[in-house]
Amino acid sequence: MSESMGNLRRNMMCGNLRDVNAGQEVILMGWVQRERNLGSLLFVDLRDTTGISQIVFDSTEDEALFKKAVTLRSEYVIAVRGKVRIRSSINKEIPTGDVEVLAEELKILDEAQTPPIYIKDDDNASETMRLKYRYLDLRKPHMQENLKLRAKTAKITRDFFYDNDFIEVETPFLTKPTPEGARDYLVPSRVSPGEFYALPQSPQLMKQLLMVSGMDKYYQIVKCFRDEDLRANRQPEFTQIDIEMSFVDVDDVISINEQFIYKLFKELKNVEIDLPIRRMTYKEAMERYGVDKPDLRFGFELVDISDLVINCGFKVFSDTVQNKGVVKGINVKGYGDKFTRKDITSLEEYAKTYGAKGLVWIKLTKGGITSPIAKFFGDEELKNILDRFNAEKGDLILIVADKLSVACDSLGNLRNEVARRLNLLSNDDFKLVWIIEFPLFEYDEEEKRYVAKHHPFTHPMDEDIDLLETEPQNVRAKAYDIVINGDEMGGGSIRINNSKLQSRMFKALGFTEEEAQEKFGFLLEAFKYGAPPHGGIAYGFDRLIMLFTNSSNIKDVIAFPKTQSATCLMTDAPTNVSEKQLEEVHVKVDIK
Amino acid sequence: MSESMGNLRRNMMCGNLRDVNAGQEVILMGWVQRERNLGSLLFVDLRDTTGISQIVFDSTEDEALFKKAVTLRSEYVIAVRGKVRIRSSINKEIPTGDVEVLAEELKILDEAQTPPIYIKDDDNASETMRLKYRYLDLRKPHMQENLKLRAKTAKITRDFFYDNDFIEVETPFLTKPTPEGARDYLVPSRVSPGEFYALPQSPQLMKQLLMVSGMDKYYQIVKCFRDEDLRANRQPEFTQIDIEMSFVDVDDVISINEQFIYKLFKELKNVEIDLPIRRMTYKEAMERYGVDKPDLRFGFELVDISDLVINCGFKVFSDTVQNKGVVKGINVKGYGDKFTRKDITSLEEYAKTYGAKGLVWIKLTKGGITSPIAKFFGDEELKNILDRFNAEKGDLILIVADKLSVACDSLGNLRNEVARRLNLLSNDDFKLVWIIEFPLFEYDEEEKRYVAKHHPFTHPMDEDIDLLETEPQNVRAKAYDIVINGDEMGGGSIRINNSKLQSRMFKALGFTEEEAQEKFGFLLEAFKYGAPPHGGIAYGFDRLIMLFTNSSNIKDVIAFPKTQSATCLMTDAPTNVSEKQLEEVHVKVDIK
Repeated sequence: MSESMGNLRRNMMCGNLRDVNAGQEVILMGWVQRERNLGSLLFVDLRDTTGISQIVFDSTEDEALFKKAVTLRSEYVIAVRGKVRIRSSINKEIPTGDVEVLAEELKILDEAQTPPIYIKDDDNASETMRLKYRYLDLRKPHMQENLKLRAKTAKITRDFFYDNDFIEVETPFLTKPTPEGARDYLVPSRVSPGEFYALPQSPQLMKQLLMVSGMDKYYQIVKCFRDEDLRANRQPEFTQIDIEMSFVDVDDVISINEQFIYKLFKELKNVEIDLPIRRMTYKEAMERYGVDKPDLRFGFELVDISDLVINCGFKVFSDTVQNKGVVKGINVKGYGDKFTRKDITSLEEYAKTYGAKGLVWIKLTKGGITSPIAKFFGDEELKNILDRFNAEKGDLILIVADKLSVACDSLGNLRNEVARRLNLLSNDDFKLVWIIEFPLFEYDEEEKRYVAKHHPFTHPMDEDIDLLETEPQNVRAKAYDIVINGDEMGGGSIRINNSKLQSRMFKALGFTEEEAQEKFGFLLEAFKYGAPPHGGIAYGFDRLIMLFTNSSNIKDVIAFPKTQSATCLMTDAPTNVSEKQLEEVHVKVDIK
Repeated sequence: MSESMGNLRRNMMCGNLRDVNAGQEVILMGWVQRERNLGSLLFVDLRDTTGISQIVFDSTEDEALFKKAVTLRSEYVIAVRGKVRIRSSINKEIPTGDVEVLAEELKILDEAQTPPIYIKDDDNASETMRLKYRYLDLRKPHMQENLKLRAKTAKITRDFFYDNDFIEVETPFLTKPTPEGARDYLVPSRVSPGEFYALPQSPQLMKQLLMVSGMDKYYQIVKCFRDEDLRANRQPEFTQIDIEMSFVDVDDVISINEQFIYKLFKELKNVEIDLPIRRMTYKEAMERYGVDKPDLRFGFELVDISDLVINCGFKVFSDTVQNKGVVKGINVKGYGDKFTRKDITSLEEYAKTYGAKGLVWIKLTKGGITSPIAKFFGDEELKNILDRFNAEKGDLILIVADKLSVACDSLGNLRNEVARRLNLLSNDDFKLVWIIEFPLFEYDEEEKRYVAKHHPFTHPMDEDIDLLETEPQNVRAKAYDIVINGDEMGGGSIRINNSKLQSRMFKALGFTEEEAQEKFGFLLEAFKYGAPPHGGIAYGFDRLIMLFTNSSNIKDVIAFPKTQSATCLMTDAPTNVSEKQLEEVHVKVDIK
């Protein structure tokens, strides 16, 4: 039997009761976390979004009330009026542990069946169950805290950019399909038969058009959509903090964003990060860390020994270098004894998933040097190699010989994996770095042409513009990523704002003028009427929340996430729809 | 020839220059609004988002610079360094009119072709041109101001709800198609062949699930989608301020929202509205104003004379009443002489568009009473009618005889139309009213059953619950709309939170249990595990911005709106997509 609240109005939240409230009459409302019947006393832990209060029903005070209370079960929703009193036995574990509420009135607002998952942080329900009963999973305190921190982060973000004269502008969701890039989610049009909208992969073109519109500074926290196969920690719809500014160059964008990042850390983690944030060129990052998002919380930097092994007796090394490959390695300094042969084999398997053909190791122990390749080297050769690695007793050196990209990729990721296995990654240690001077182009082996590494509107560095036609591979971009603890949290660039440079860019990308027009016509048209220098950045909002909540699973920071196959287990979306609905939008299902 | 900013960095906005800046060196950047060449002096009005500054190029000071400046044309983007000085002839029309900047350095950041529409507020370009060149249209000062007010309104909204412990939660955009209501936008799934997502018409179910999740108070400013034929001031995607609260009844929701509305008016219009806002039952609104969103800025209330004419000699009246219809009218008090016979004919045409079969009029002039129906009434009868209307010399009475719904609808709208024609609608006069106690059901003539007037989860008024089975037509809902100057700005309700009442509701709607399960299964499942009493409201954000910017066209408050046929003239969305793209999502075009 459910009741209405009647005249009861909540005047206190469960998590806020303190000893100073003793003697007050309060009205609490929430869910029964658990109940214990001690015969004449019934204790109920009552939970709301702020925490838990202990309620006592005393049969000697009010027997009818007690009888009603013993019908309570877990997750019943109730309203309780009663008097706050100091507990006879204080519970130091919870903030409200000094007091309890002696119930004088009880309303059962809704009954509950036994929930299929436990409402507590250390519930071990499968992800499937957690997603199916998401509304129960979200009752867990840590999930509530995650969503609250997310809301707080949005608030800090909006306050910061609003206070700095950025204008929040909503960009459309029913947009034009994108000619390049990831796969679009399509929306068939009813009014224009046979035509489709696309959900935006990002508001990139719209925010550039806003700059052409003279909006000067724009920001938005906005959903974006990419219909890609979902790797871990990707969602088909994700949230972006999107920013664009006019009349700026790289330093201007970086400078305001450093203030923003500073504020996030200060208000969310009470950490004062050092400003300015360190900057590292893409080239240096690749050379020293093998990846463009280095985790700077630990060492193990990449070392190049190609010059030392070009003529060595170990053919794998010498052949690789002679065929324009490289031999690089990392020194897992001081942790050699943490890795058994079996561990090293497992690291080799890991490196292979990034394309390495093998992993050579050298271990320096009290007993001397152990390595399957030691025998191929003379003492002097070996000494030079070890010196290059600054190797000492207790070290473990891991080496990959391959073409540059594979060596970097496999060692860069191996470096992170080693640190993970060694438990070197503290969640309270934040290492931030701007990666700058990205290459403007990368060579697409499939299409046999240069493609834009970011997008075709990225501005080349001024000093490299003249290389556009002659050495495109050496042109650096006015692009920048903010990397925190090895994760790219955001990235952006200065955009091209003049049509002559844009034409040279398209030519370098191998587009004819007609192709450029077809792909980007409306933007090019807009740029004819006076475009200011402009640039911006976009942050992965979900990733930021993962960072600030120490979550390793993106689903823990999104209220209603989707599975790896982009389904919602709670609502069963996507689903079949009626023939009539499809007819109205002029499509039919066509499963090959 | 375009140049880069080089070392120039903007240190002043065009609209902010004042006499106190005289003597300072400033660097301004923006668009050339216009240029006037007076021979040895060239004046340039430079525009940015804040306003306009006058720049002077003096050939006697720097001839090379002057020569460069004479190449400037409208909408060129430039950077100017120069010294601020008091103008010789002050311009009182603009805030920066006391001063000008004597240019010492000029960089042409981008050239511009002659724009196809004028960049000024009173440009008369067609809507088609304005939408095609939206980035130019947005350069107009009033469009910039509209978007800024929109951003400010969002900021006020978020601050208010955040400060009142509401948690902003993002709900999904790829959702399950809705079983009832408006037409969904569909998104074919690639991973689940033959299945579809729908874009949300509102986050209604998600926000209710958040309450079941214990989130307590939720808000979001969120895009919603309805694929309906677009009437004026509708857009296929629109923005909603969405709110839901737990452990509340009608007064609680209304009370916090009155504080919110108060804050909006105070901060946006510097108007202090009276609290509490007046409340009017649906019944009273319909009786007195004929519509459920009455404009209270003027009188002309509906008057019922059915009882006076049931046996009169004018058959149209007496027959209507005897057949259960009504005879109602309005008195356009004091404005009788503003309406000629021709005007009245035009009002009659207007009333007919709302279903009225005709419009009877009585005019009271110095010369006496004029009316085509006067001859059917005795003196006493006529006097009683005129008394009922409180009619005096100078009045015009307009009467409709029809069934109740048609009489109300046509007179209610006629009442507004009359006020519009009389110019009685001041934009500075704000009349707010809560319409409450809506009927829970309305009868669907097509389906021959009762349907939910709001949605099937709306809570009946406590005192009417027992009428659910016996007199569904008399059950009132715990629903409320906020109406401002005759526009519904928002609406909401308390929801049903217990499954027994929900079952009775479904039965009243004629659903079998299986049908209810099929349509709303996941919500019903969620409600099994303890749902708190909850309710909320949603505001039409675009409409609020129209109100606060005095805009009559919704397109003037949205950055990139769509046409009536849901197309974007700037990007040409929607468009054709490739066969490959369609194959990937398992659909093909099927135009009947």
